[in-house]
Amino acid sequence: MKNVPFKGIIAYPITPFDQNEKVDIPLFKKLVERLIVSGSHGIAPLGSTGVMPYLSDDEKEAITEASIQQTNGRIPTLVGVSNLTTEKTVHHAKFAEKAGADAVMIIPMSYWKLTDDEIVAHYDAVARQISIPIMAYNNPATSGVDMSPALLKRLLEIPNVTMIKESTGDIQRMHYLRKELGEDVAFYNGSNPLALSAFTAGARGWCTAAPNLIPELNVNLYKAVEAGDLEKAKEIFYKQFDLLKFIVNKGLPRAVKAGLNILGQEGGNLRSPLKPLTERETEELKNIIKTLN
Amino acid sequence: MKNVPFKGIIAYPITPFDQNEKVDIPLFKKLVERLIVSGSHGIAPLGSTGVMPYLSDDEKEAITEASIQQTNGRIPTLVGVSNLTTEKTVHHAKFAEKAGADAVMIIPMSYWKLTDDEIVAHYDAVARQISIPIMAYNNPATSGVDMSPALLKRLLEIPNVTMIKESTGDIQRMHYLRKELGEDVAFYNGSNPLALSAFTAGARGWCTAAPNLIPELNVNLYKAVEAGDLEKAKEIFYKQFDLLKFIVNKGLPRAVKAGLNILGQEGGNLRSPLKPLTERETEELKNIIKTLN
Amino acid sequence: MKNVPFKGIIAYPITPFDQNEKVDIPLFKKLVERLIVSGSHGIAPLGSTGVMPYLSDDEKEAITEASIQQTNGRIPTLVGVSNLTTEKTVHHAKFAEKAGADAVMIIPMSYWKLTDDEIVAHYDAVARQISIPIMAYNNPATSGVDMSPALLKRLLEIPNVTMIKESTGDIQRMHYLRKELGEDVAFYNGSNPLALSAFTAGARGWCTAAPNLIPELNVNLYKAVEAGDLEKAKEIFYKQFDLLKFIVNKGLPRAVKAGLNILGQEGGNLRSPLKPLTERETEELKNIIKTLN
Amino acid sequence: MKNVPFKGIIAYPITPFDQNEKVDIPLFKKLVERLIVSGSHGIAPLGSTGVMPYLSDDEKEAITEASIQQTNGRIPTLVGVSNLTTEKTVHHAKFAEKAGADAVMIIPMSYWKLTDDEIVAHYDAVARQISIPIMAYNNPATSGVDMSPALLKRLLEIPNVTMIKESTGDIQRMHYLRKELGEDVAFYNGSNPLALSAFTAGARGWCTAAPNLIPELNVNLYKAVEAGDLEKAKEIFYKQFDLLKFIVNKGLPRAVKAGLNILGQEGGNLRSPLKPLTERETEELKNIIKTLN
Repeated sequence: MKNVPFKGIIAYPITPFDQNEKVDIPLFKKLVERLIVSGSHGIAPLGSTGVMPYLSDDEKEAITEASIQQTNGRIPTLVGVSNLTTEKTVHHAKFAEKAGADAVMIIPMSYWKLTDDEIVAHYDAVARQISIPIMAYNNPATSGVDMSPALLKRLLEIPNVTMIKESTGDIQRMHYLRKELGEDVAFYNGSNPLALSAFTAGARGWCTAAPNLIPELNVNLYKAVEAGDLEKAKEIFYKQFDLLKFIVNKGLPRAVKAGLNILGQEGGNLRSPLKPLTERETEELKNIIKTLN
Repeated sequence: MKNVPFKGIIAYPITPFDQNEKVDIPLFKKLVERLIVSGSHGIAPLGSTGVMPYLSDDEKEAITEASIQQTNGRIPTLVGVSNLTTEKTVHHAKFAEKAGADAVMIIPMSYWKLTDDEIVAHYDAVARQISIPIMAYNNPATSGVDMSPALLKRLLEIPNVTMIKESTGDIQRMHYLRKELGEDVAFYNGSNPLALSAFTAGARGWCTAAPNLIPELNVNLYKAVEAGDLEKAKEIFYKQFDLLKFIVNKGLPRAVKAGLNILGQEGGNLRSPLKPLTERETEELKNIIKTLN
Repeated sequence: MKNVPFKGIIAYPITPFDQNEKVDIPLFKKLVERLIVSGSHGIAPLGSTGVMPYLSDDEKEAITEASIQQTNGRIPTLVGVSNLTTEKTVHHAKFAEKAGADAVMIIPMSYWKLTDDEIVAHYDAVARQISIPIMAYNNPATSGVDMSPALLKRLLEIPNVTMIKESTGDIQRMHYLRKELGEDVAFYNGSNPLALSAFTAGARGWCTAAPNLIPELNVNLYKAVEAGDLEKAKEIFYKQFDLLKFIVNKGLPRAVKAGLNILGQEGGNLRSPLKPLTERETEELKNIIKTLN
Repeated sequence: MKNVPFKGIIAYPITPFDQNEKVDIPLFKKLVERLIVSGSHGIAPLGSTGVMPYLSDDEKEAITEASIQQTNGRIPTLVGVSNLTTEKTVHHAKFAEKAGADAVMIIPMSYWKLTDDEIVAHYDAVARQISIPIMAYNNPATSGVDMSPALLKRLLEIPNVTMIKESTGDIQRMHYLRKELGEDVAFYNGSNPLALSAFTAGARGWCTAAPNLIPELNVNLYKAVEAGDLEKAKEIFYKQFDLLKFIVNKGLPRAVKAGLNILGQEGGNLRSPLKPLTERETEELKNIIKTLN
């Protein structure tokens, strides 16, 4: 596939904050390093996990640069550049390209529900200003817009929109996309509890925050699928299912931070209004993690 | 597994009607025979596909007897006996057992949304009157009630409730059931477009009307999964995906009847208010079937 | 308005059962009498409240005859005749007409989701066999079909479909219907918690089980609205709001039976799988009823 | 009521942009003036209508100052200060107070679904920094969070949270709030198509963009309700219903801009990705407006 730099496990780092709720770049770099050395196949800063919408422009730029410096070409980098306005999205996409990102991810954020034409124009405006590939991201729960297969088809006609990330949580949608868009389209799964089904449906990669906590299980699931070993894939998937469900239900930034602490790692602070998990929730996570060993 | 007579492809025959909208038993037997000889592993009369709720008590009994006579022990028989009232459900379950059914399927039909306690009492009342196993069927779209994993757990404590059929169309639910109820529970998939994902999630069987039209593809999908051949399973699944989606969207009785006619088979008439597919829909189905050869 | 016999409070009796879960006709007549003498403007046996779908054909006919005998022309009678099949719906509609009903109510029950054409043909088949008016009833929660304003428009072209009962629970739908169908269409509200809004939106009547318990509050709300006294209507509505919400949430047959008992009236038994309210629920209802005096 | 500066029609101006998509302050002031002189009882800049989330901090501050200058105390001003982070929300709330706003409106924006405790802490953090009253705004469609009546009750315990704006579009919710929170709570309706029902349910005011186009109809509906004239209220409401539905369906900024142009007024440009209505949509709006005269 042309212009499709990702495959396998694409890991989403959190953005850690210090005690004054300022971005903690040194700790961020450390967390990125952990993801790389534990076997992730790609790194995706400024996603939902990285609380991108809660950051200022300057903070986004600092995170972008830190990611690329730290990764240093060892694995490809996918930078989130979504914004409510087209102008800002263009701005961040250009910044990411200049900083050395391998691709950018764009979700059509919408306070006012966008029409299909508005969405196409939005992606097109960005695509015309950069030359690295774009991953179009469909996640109605966070964007407020459910991009139909027909709309995704239109987006794929824009030359550098080459990848689709699907997070509706509906496996039928993935089947449908594959049938409608053809087997050549690179689609990625963004729904953690669907990891097994999505891989068996033909997803090229899994966009996930889980490698912050269980990198081996994530990577091994991918390997089992690649080897066509369904029994082993099933076994590895069910082993991690409770954790995947937990981190999704509690909110990825909160759950990953708590999980890092349980594992004896620094996770930094959250930015208000986000608060840490309650004690009871932390205890629950502790128990889930315990069963994995 | 004890008391779990089904595995693989459990085929649902339609109930054909004559020109006066009376049940056509001879044609029904012919349709059952087709399902058996084409390799189905079980036969399930009086399901949604068989328009069970549209039939009188006498008609249900005639269909039950015809199914068991025609099958004649070659493959196991699963008879639908659901009814709004407990009394009628007991009546039909006893009839099915006496007629020789291997198991009965019960969905907690509900005009008035039932409480968990009412549902447990309903299944219990039936279970105490028969000794063949019961498949509990969860399909909120038709029953109006979504049985939670906790409720299903309670039902499984009733000795002869040994199987669960899941048709929420949500693969996460199946993952969850398997984690919550344990790997020993026999669960069956009732959502056609989820066939691949459900098998990879560990479903023991697939309850489907599709063998009326594409028995080989259904059986071969099961065989590929059994052989652990993920690539082949994927290929066979995607081949039949459009047909599965079509028959679900148009309503199984309408779509199967139309498909039988396209294949040169008799399908009988429908009972009003159900009407045949429109010409345009029939044409669409013809095109889907054509691509399968 | 031509052929529109109803206005105001249309009361729904429950169908009481004896200790063997057989219909108790003498008690039913007593309950009907209570509704009439307490001021209801119409009586509607065999509705959801009357658990019509749980009754045999014979039982439905006995209830129909008992209603008309007991009412004896004092107020108009609206008999529920809905059935999954067209043939049975015609049968019950003809029976109701012959027995002396003023109108019949029909909801397009659907196990298999009906197309618009199937629904029109269904109503048309019934309408051609009777000469009393038909109230078309839209309640997606129980029928599984949400009839669009466009479809309702088509139904109103059938000469004796003259009334519409709306129970989507969405007041915007009522506004929309009134705008689309014109002020001359007689529409009725079937959603208890919307009673005030529906009357202010222009509903001609309120189809409700509440007069079994609080007939005065129901009738007085209607009178205040008729008098254009918004302040009084608001006051009377908020007085009964908790009870309306309670009976809807708990299921009308269960809640009305419990309420009758609290008021010192006989309510008979329910038919399984329906069970009485729990003690805690009954206590809650007792408290709500206490605050009304 | 203490600390409740609003009643009646609270008008939401759009934020107009020039040809380079920069905020056009002179035109904004002109639009605010139109709203004031046409009889609105309050003015609410930086709402959804004013595309607040699409603006930079500097732009928000300029709009805040322009609103207060132009209004100049003639009617009270309600300034939107919502932000994803608590820190920014505090910043904008303090700015609004210093600039002279009578109150601020805060919706708990959430990319990551907030817990009840997080929401309470968020409002509390803002409330402790300002002394003007806060209107808590519930609109799950835009915020992603549906604040339960129990949560709203907790918010109302914060001293300067004195008003609630409800935009779930569900009139039952308003009934419920009034019953649960008591008649003394000042609640406001933010759902245009529910205007009549909300006023009859007891809403103290209507937050709406409609006065940009039909101020007389909006104000007269309020007057009819105040006078307790239900018939007149109904008549005036149905006259404007199509327009209310249209502007909601098409998105308020797009629809108001198009409507202003149809009325011969300047409406400025939209900011990308938002685009003007299509020609067909504009024609439809033209027809609706024509019928109002």
